[in-house]
Amino acid sequence: MNIKPNFEGMEVGYDIPALPGMAEADIQTPCLVLDLDALERNIAKMGRFAREMGVRHRVHGKMHKSVDVALLQERLGGSCGVCCQKVSEAEVFARGGIKDVLVSNQVRDLAKIDRLARIPKLGARTIVCVDDLANVADLSAAAVKHGTTIECLVEIDCGAGRCGVTTTGAVVALGQAIAAAKGLKFAGIQAYQGAMQHMDKYEDRKAKIDLAVAQVRDAVAGLKAVGLDCDIVGGGGTGSYYFEGNSGVYNELQCGSYAFMDADYGRILDKDGKRIDQGEWENALFILTSVMSHAKPDRAICDAGLKAQSVDSGLPVIFGRTDVKYIKCSDEHGVIDDPEGVLKVNDKLRLVPGHCDPTCNVHDWYVGVRDGKVEVLWPVSARGKAF
Amino acid sequence: MNIKPNFEGMEVGYDIPALPGMAEADIQTPCLVLDLDALERNIAKMGRFAREMGVRHRVHGKMHKSVDVALLQERLGGSCGVCCQKVSEAEVFARGGIKDVLVSNQVRDLAKIDRLARIPKLGARTIVCVDDLANVADLSAAAVKHGTTIECLVEIDCGAGRCGVTTTGAVVALGQAIAAAKGLKFAGIQAYQGAMQHMDKYEDRKAKIDLAVAQVRDAVAGLKAVGLDCDIVGGGGTGSYYFEGNSGVYNELQCGSYAFMDADYGRILDKDGKRIDQGEWENALFILTSVMSHAKPDRAICDAGLKAQSVDSGLPVIFGRTDVKYIKCSDEHGVIDDPEGVLKVNDKLRLVPGHCDPTCNVHDWYVGVRDGKVEVLWPVSARGKAF
Repeated sequence: MNIKPNFEGMEVGYDIPALPGMAEADIQTPCLVLDLDALERNIAKMGRFAREMGVRHRVHGKMHKSVDVALLQERLGGSCGVCCQKVSEAEVFARGGIKDVLVSNQVRDLAKIDRLARIPKLGARTIVCVDDLANVADLSAAAVKHGTTIECLVEIDCGAGRCGVTTTGAVVALGQAIAAAKGLKFAGIQAYQGAMQHMDKYEDRKAKIDLAVAQVRDAVAGLKAVGLDCDIVGGGGTGSYYFEGNSGVYNELQCGSYAFMDADYGRILDKDGKRIDQGEWENALFILTSVMSHAKPDRAICDAGLKAQSVDSGLPVIFGRTDVKYIKCSDEHGVIDDPEGVLKVNDKLRLVPGHCDPTCNVHDWYVGVRDGKVEVLWPVSARGKAF
Repeated sequence: MNIKPNFEGMEVGYDIPALPGMAEADIQTPCLVLDLDALERNIAKMGRFAREMGVRHRVHGKMHKSVDVALLQERLGGSCGVCCQKVSEAEVFARGGIKDVLVSNQVRDLAKIDRLARIPKLGARTIVCVDDLANVADLSAAAVKHGTTIECLVEIDCGAGRCGVTTTGAVVALGQAIAAAKGLKFAGIQAYQGAMQHMDKYEDRKAKIDLAVAQVRDAVAGLKAVGLDCDIVGGGGTGSYYFEGNSGVYNELQCGSYAFMDADYGRILDKDGKRIDQGEWENALFILTSVMSHAKPDRAICDAGLKAQSVDSGLPVIFGRTDVKYIKCSDEHGVIDDPEGVLKVNDKLRLVPGHCDPTCNVHDWYVGVRDGKVEVLWPVSARGKAF
């Protein structure tokens, strides 16, 4: 037995998958591994794109749920702040030192609104989305009660079919109500077209965003006609940021997955018909897994199943391998087709998860590696913060 | 605003969804809710079934990952111990006071084997599965090193197509190797037929288990012929326990989902053609969710998406309602078809998750309710313990 001394006898070793300084080969699996070089390149690149298009980038923290990654995106990518989807996430980011936090979602429960109104006391600009006049009075009362300011974006449903209003008339009515409410500040528009981000073809995505841009342009003009300027016109994702960024209407992007990439996003095609994980972005996030049984010659069983990932957008892909394939996922096992029997027990494989966001939400730690060594352990700070 | 005083100004309130004593209506959503009455009835019932069949019940802790639920299963259901799938889970159960823990899975990584060999020092009988002769020496060396005993079950693949050997010859060879190894004790057979648990028809499930029982009976006889008695012949799940329990060969059941139920298991039929969630078991686990937007008249948006559940086995079902239906799930949102527009913002709904195991693994807390009040908050003790 040749066990690294690091873990031996360490009670703490029971609850973390690795220790800084450890070789990648000694990481306990399954766990999330970040290729720090690739991550840093992705972050810097998107920062450059946003600067070149003359727009801000508010990175989507709901994807990684990590204060450490968000701070890296500030430092290397020049991001202006974070957006996230839940009050509990916003609390984590504000407590972690992010100074500008948008909850790009509705907050309706009164206890949640009360929590939201307290976030400015943590030192963070606090912004939220509104799609219903009945929400304005509740937000206002909480901000007044706590002596804080909540900035509000009117959410437009520009194709995602979830929250948001659909007419400029409704946008203007909400904008005016917000502007008139004590404790609130009208800050602009939220218009994220989520439904098209994963369409394979560039032209199909462009057609959808063209419609969204026209809708948003009309809303901005309608607001301007009643004297309301939009500090923020926000939206855009990894599958569309160049459309919104060059639209002349949007001024803030909200990309998330670009930093980590995943198998489902990787499949979409850029304007030259090339997969976006083959040049535009690098895979920086992996589920590290080990072969734990090979009792049948053509089937290897690995230790990453449904408790190590979400398969809502398809199975994971084994990174850099075409000779073996992940073909089935149960609670704690993955079945790998290994027709030539090339895998051995304890072999480690890097899986590209099907969908990064809910996969990250299953894990407690990111193990950051560089040059085959563990460099950092970052907690998934807002993991499980769904309420 | 009418906020319950409980959460007001409480920093701790940021990280938990409820407080004991709170009304169910004030719970922060989305979160897991346990109907304690239903849970206790399910647990007691399965305990009675096992006693009547004359077999032990080793409850599957990988489903709930909760020390508190496991201790309740001991107290109300007379369970003999816990099985789980990972060393990190076994550590949590042993630390939490469970005295008999089976890792019903292979452990091959040397560092993990070292951790496994230390679990007896926490006061728990420690059992693991083996399907490869090469594993025996590693397990033995670790047990000898730590001066402990690891009990070993030979795992038979009786139809699940994952880990496990398939011939009685291989079972006997492994049994003999275990019996001969220092620090190890041969304890019997693990033979869980996982692939048939969710087949709808009783007769289809019976046909599969009949094959498994024949295979196990042959293996037990083969072991006996070389002087090896099986203390444990373990297997069986919520879709099959009556087959194994009445087989005369199995002596230990390993059911998990019966305690909580879920939508996917609920659909399978008993011997009278009745869904098993309509009499055999009660739904005790729910995702409590709130309506957070209703900007379109026939679509309500709720706050439970992929970060609050796993949809690998289908979408959740809205409990007790036929007028509204959960039809789409994205990261943080659920889309509810509400053709008559009966739902209002902040209405709370109980969702029965598609698949309980990976859904529980997303959450940090179980909120136990009785008579409309929060009675307990139980941590999902082994949440994220995948390594």
